Amino acid sequence: MALVDPNYLFPAEPGVRSLARDLYGTVRDLPIVSPHGHTDPRWYADNQLFPDPAQLLIVPDHYIFRMLFSQGHRLEDFGVPTLDGAPVETDGRTIWRRFAKSYYHFRGTPTRLWLDYTLQTLFALDEPLTGATADRHYDAIAERLASDSYRPRALYERFNIEVIATTDGALDDLSSHRAIRDSGWRGRIVPTYRPDAVVDPDFEGFAANLDRLADISGADTGTWDGYLDAHRRRRAAFQALGATATDHGHPTAETANLTHTEAARLFDRVRLGTADAGERALFRAQMLTEMARMSADDGLVMQIHPGSMRNHSAAMFARFGRDKGFDIPTRTDYVRALQPLLDAVGTDPRASVILFTLDETSYARELAPLAGVYPALKLGPAWWFHDSPEGMRRFREATTETAGFYNTVGFNDDTRAFPSIPARHDVARRVDCAFLARLVTEHRLREAEAHELAHDLAYGLAKKAYRL
Amino acid sequence: MALVDPNYLFPAEPGVRSLARDLYGTVRDLPIVSPHGHTDPRWYADNQLFPDPAQLLIVPDHYIFRMLFSQGHRLEDFGVPTLDGAPVETDGRTIWRRFAKSYYHFRGTPTRLWLDYTLQTLFALDEPLTGATADRHYDAIAERLASDSYRPRALYERFNIEVIATTDGALDDLSSHRAIRDSGWRGRIVPTYRPDAVVDPDFEGFAANLDRLADISGADTGTWDGYLDAHRRRRAAFQALGATATDHGHPTAETANLTHTEAARLFDRVRLGTADAGERALFRAQMLTEMARMSADDGLVMQIHPGSMRNHSAAMFARFGRDKGFDIPTRTDYVRALQPLLDAVGTDPRASVILFTLDETSYARELAPLAGVYPALKLGPAWWFHDSPEGMRRFREATTETAGFYNTVGFNDDTRAFPSIPARHDVARRVDCAFLARLVTEHRLREAEAHELAHDLAYGLAKKAYRL
Amino acid sequence: MALVDPNYLFPAEPGVRSLARDLYGTVRDLPIVSPHGHTDPRWYADNQLFPDPAQLLIVPDHYIFRMLFSQGHRLEDFGVPTLDGAPVETDGRTIWRRFAKSYYHFRGTPTRLWLDYTLQTLFALDEPLTGATADRHYDAIAERLASDSYRPRALYERFNIEVIATTDGALDDLSSHRAIRDSGWRGRIVPTYRPDAVVDPDFEGFAANLDRLADISGADTGTWDGYLDAHRRRRAAFQALGATATDHGHPTAETANLTHTEAARLFDRVRLGTADAGERALFRAQMLTEMARMSADDGLVMQIHPGSMRNHSAAMFARFGRDKGFDIPTRTDYVRALQPLLDAVGTDPRASVILFTLDETSYARELAPLAGVYPALKLGPAWWFHDSPEGMRRFREATTETAGFYNTVGFNDDTRAFPSIPARHDVARRVDCAFLARLVTEHRLREAEAHELAHDLAYGLAKKAYRL
Repeated sequence: MALVDPNYLFPAEPGVRSLARDLYGTVRDLPIVSPHGHTDPRWYADNQLFPDPAQLLIVPDHYIFRMLFSQGHRLEDFGVPTLDGAPVETDGRTIWRRFAKSYYHFRGTPTRLWLDYTLQTLFALDEPLTGATADRHYDAIAERLASDSYRPRALYERFNIEVIATTDGALDDLSSHRAIRDSGWRGRIVPTYRPDAVVDPDFEGFAANLDRLADISGADTGTWDGYLDAHRRRRAAFQALGATATDHGHPTAETANLTHTEAARLFDRVRLGTADAGERALFRAQMLTEMARMSADDGLVMQIHPGSMRNHSAAMFARFGRDKGFDIPTRTDYVRALQPLLDAVGTDPRASVILFTLDETSYARELAPLAGVYPALKLGPAWWFHDSPEGMRRFREATTETAGFYNTVGFNDDTRAFPSIPARHDVARRVDCAFLARLVTEHRLREAEAHELAHDLAYGLAKKAYRL
Repeated sequence: MALVDPNYLFPAEPGVRSLARDLYGTVRDLPIVSPHGHTDPRWYADNQLFPDPAQLLIVPDHYIFRMLFSQGHRLEDFGVPTLDGAPVETDGRTIWRRFAKSYYHFRGTPTRLWLDYTLQTLFALDEPLTGATADRHYDAIAERLASDSYRPRALYERFNIEVIATTDGALDDLSSHRAIRDSGWRGRIVPTYRPDAVVDPDFEGFAANLDRLADISGADTGTWDGYLDAHRRRRAAFQALGATATDHGHPTAETANLTHTEAARLFDRVRLGTADAGERALFRAQMLTEMARMSADDGLVMQIHPGSMRNHSAAMFARFGRDKGFDIPTRTDYVRALQPLLDAVGTDPRASVILFTLDETSYARELAPLAGVYPALKLGPAWWFHDSPEGMRRFREATTETAGFYNTVGFNDDTRAFPSIPARHDVARRVDCAFLARLVTEHRLREAEAHELAHDLAYGLAKKAYRL
Repeated sequence: MALVDPNYLFPAEPGVRSLARDLYGTVRDLPIVSPHGHTDPRWYADNQLFPDPAQLLIVPDHYIFRMLFSQGHRLEDFGVPTLDGAPVETDGRTIWRRFAKSYYHFRGTPTRLWLDYTLQTLFALDEPLTGATADRHYDAIAERLASDSYRPRALYERFNIEVIATTDGALDDLSSHRAIRDSGWRGRIVPTYRPDAVVDPDFEGFAANLDRLADISGADTGTWDGYLDAHRRRRAAFQALGATATDHGHPTAETANLTHTEAARLFDRVRLGTADAGERALFRAQMLTEMARMSADDGLVMQIHPGSMRNHSAAMFARFGRDKGFDIPTRTDYVRALQPLLDAVGTDPRASVILFTLDETSYARELAPLAGVYPALKLGPAWWFHDSPEGMRRFREATTETAGFYNTVGFNDDTRAFPSIPARHDVARRVDCAFLARLVTEHRLREAEAHELAHDLAYGLAKKAYRL
């Protein structure tokens, strides 16, 4: 019994299915271009064996443990560490067994699709994961993880990755990236500049972060001009190690376009910690515009991920910290929010801003109309909760008619779950081919065009949009 | 000519259709679990014959007369009573004929599906209802309604209902429920605690309602603590007659989590009628949290139905009163609104809160992410205007990938239209089976899993979620 | 190689496709009723030859040049005139070649569907438009445009148009409409009353516009009563030349229902230019209600198009002016916004208000529930960015179950692109037939009903709703 059928994710109608399969056949083996993700550069630098199956596949994956928690399980029982060091389950096999028994809760979710694909293609398992098969699966995975051919660099090559971007704080010394470069290994791992910790006055330790930014950049972060210069220097340092993009996670898409005097005055209050909540929000807004201007200058592509309310449960945040599945999307405005940034650089062909959303209502109403006219804007793929077959389909249906395909940027896996990367790209390629096959079958597109587009969506657009 | 085809609501593609039919075949005859609805407990207590076809099927159904009104008809011509007693049509046959002539306006609506199903399966009619067939239909229905086998208890048994919940005000004496229990009849009719009239300061007669609440509960509703105690006592009285749930219709999903002192002070102002609009809204918000706490304590499952703007037309409200089709959905926030309640009980596995929405944009953006992590939350089914094939399909497509199936609660018929109950459950079972069949055909789910899920969605989840 | 397949836009499943094609076959050749559009009445009055292919098909079409601009092209290179007269490309063939080379950017968009259809059916071209075929296409189109059988009146007849409405400012002298009427030509070209320039205090030259309104109407626009009377007279003048409708483009759907005294006082401030932004918005809101009242009195059907933020880019507006693709949709409320207007005329069967939206989230949540109960309301078709196969499908899926088909009004082409009119109606007819075919195949509608509905959606509803 195969876990992943060759026709997986293709529509049932035989004509559409056959064409989708043909299209997919021409892109299935294309190299993976992964321009946005969260794998750890140390993996590639150190090339150590991965730990046990649970530590690799369960414990760090908030898609997994949030669902288990929603069904009444305790995070501690799945090895999720507590901030205060209160003990949690550490035995990989125990965690794996618990997960296997609850795996049916993931029916209908992309987690299920990714994991089944990974079990089959990476670990050669073809029995469904259940309580009954848990140990056999665990043993088989553990055995493979102990072999050299499952070290990070070997997996990178096995996965046919052409280039992968990590996400790195502005204060990161990039030593792993330097080590990779110096190692002579020919894998292409590039950093991405993520300055939230030195841009968001509400970030933990913001003032100290600016001090460290001064140290690491050699610029004086005590003044607005020096602070901007520090960013420029750090961006250049990232570029020197291969970065082609920046990434910005903000609560909203608000941007601002203050005069230099206004911005400098605002920076002083933020720097001193005397800014109120409105001023802190205004500072974040201003910084998006500054980053967009720098994008036009230095060519780093800018990514904006707005609209998540982080750490919704104060109690869970206090016990477990960030990124525990309690980041919840909110309604997000783009039309008014982006106007200041677009006034500054929207029609500048050197600038490139990729927009993401967790609020799908904005696709047809706001994002496709904006990206369909401003040369500086492109649409990021269906993201996070929408990185899924239905989410991707809705993305194409909502955006294509207004923005076309060429104002989109291909797929992002956006993941720290390294083994799932091929699965994620495979889902995206299949869903896009299914969409194209429907257009051809409905005579809205010619077959030759669909072949070109399948290649662009799987490979070409990501390289072009991210300047990789 | 059959009004309802065996393949009704199944997708056209033969493979999906065949599988959908197989799945449906295994759940079609499962008993009906109806955990939320508005049938009148007196029907089951008194077991009287239903009146004429129009009074049973047309006059009380606001889905029907709102559409007729939108097409230029007068409500009076369909027997809808006026508040001032101005005369309205009373002849059942006249009303029925008028309706039959306008029945084509319902093409494409669930009302049409429910009525055709009811005509065929309950009244053995297989000709389309039109002006030309109106009298034949009327006579056939009237004849059956006069027979003992169409009395409420007989229909309950014919419909294969296992349990049905009614909705009962906090001040209801539950005499009908007591009479049913004492009658020895083995039908299971359970009340649901709906306290809007004693929770919402804007409800007509709120102050007098609190006095009656004191009388009926024996608690002192002059103080905050006594008022809460009155709720606890009434909840216990409902539980004693089989209730497993409460139901709360609020304009928004706002919740609050005040200190005891703040809440007591707010109650005093509300009790005295001196609270302003903001305070009255805050009181409603606080009461959702109080009810959620009581849910954790006494185990009654809590249902929240926010987001309807009631009685949109002042003129129609003045002439005909409530529930005349002028309740219009509005945009509804959940992420911020529910945070106080979730801070109080969201991670408490004893609590259970079922959320409904009339704003479908919240499904993928807010509700599925919230229900996919908080153990106290579950998602109610597509409701009211979305209790329809497209509405249910969109519900599954928007929520499953993030919240899975097991954070949903099965189907609610939510109706006072007793004869339509089997039709409504049948639509839900068919649409869910069609959705599952698509997942299987696209190899996103195994067939054996789909069979388990079909049973859960049709039967198991409702029993479990509502603790029935 | 045909550009447009006979099965174009029909679903792939053979049963649904066959039925869709049957339904379409019965409506394909119905006359075009075009109750809302922007063709120039001078075309029909003067009946001059159209200019070169680029000037006809590319330069005036903001769907086209906004996409080209988004891909980094300059508007000047496509002949879009600058406000300051800075030179732009004027050579039609050069513009056409540039466009042909970029035409692949339109894959997946309705522009592509319309243009391919037009190339094939109007210009007998059956090769795809590319850089390689650009000249052949250009020559073929140019040759035909020089012939009498491609003059406006000949095209009107060739297109089988039964009636077409233009959109005309309140200050328009309607001389072209008078000339058409007096010419003896039997084409039916009717004006539509669009008073934005004399209703919106933020319109350029508002005060002077009111002076001209006084001149043209003979009413005193210095007082509120005189101003309303001026509208009544202009509406009557439009009706005398065949108008059956008015059209109102507002930033929001806000309406108001002031007392006569309040409205008169507000008018005075607006007239004097002393009204602040809130008062100017209130005046627009009040005027929607006044126009709805006049609709009840004189029978002109009222169309409201809210929710576009005009001229999003100040820089592009300064260089190129209005209507250059920078009008971006925004979130739009209807439930509260329309309540004052609906209080005034919502239940008056003489009134008729057709609502459009660019915010699709309002369809299922607000617009279908409102139109499904208020007799004065009908739903306009999927509009602008949603005038597309997916947009139309979503419109039907989101509105039909609550509002039915008979609270909708058929199709609007809403275009100034005269050659594309048959293409646009053809898309709508095909998409509606595909939707109906799905309902029949899923046994939600009988085939005979679908035939009736196909005719109504393609022809009957537009004539009825617009009183044509």
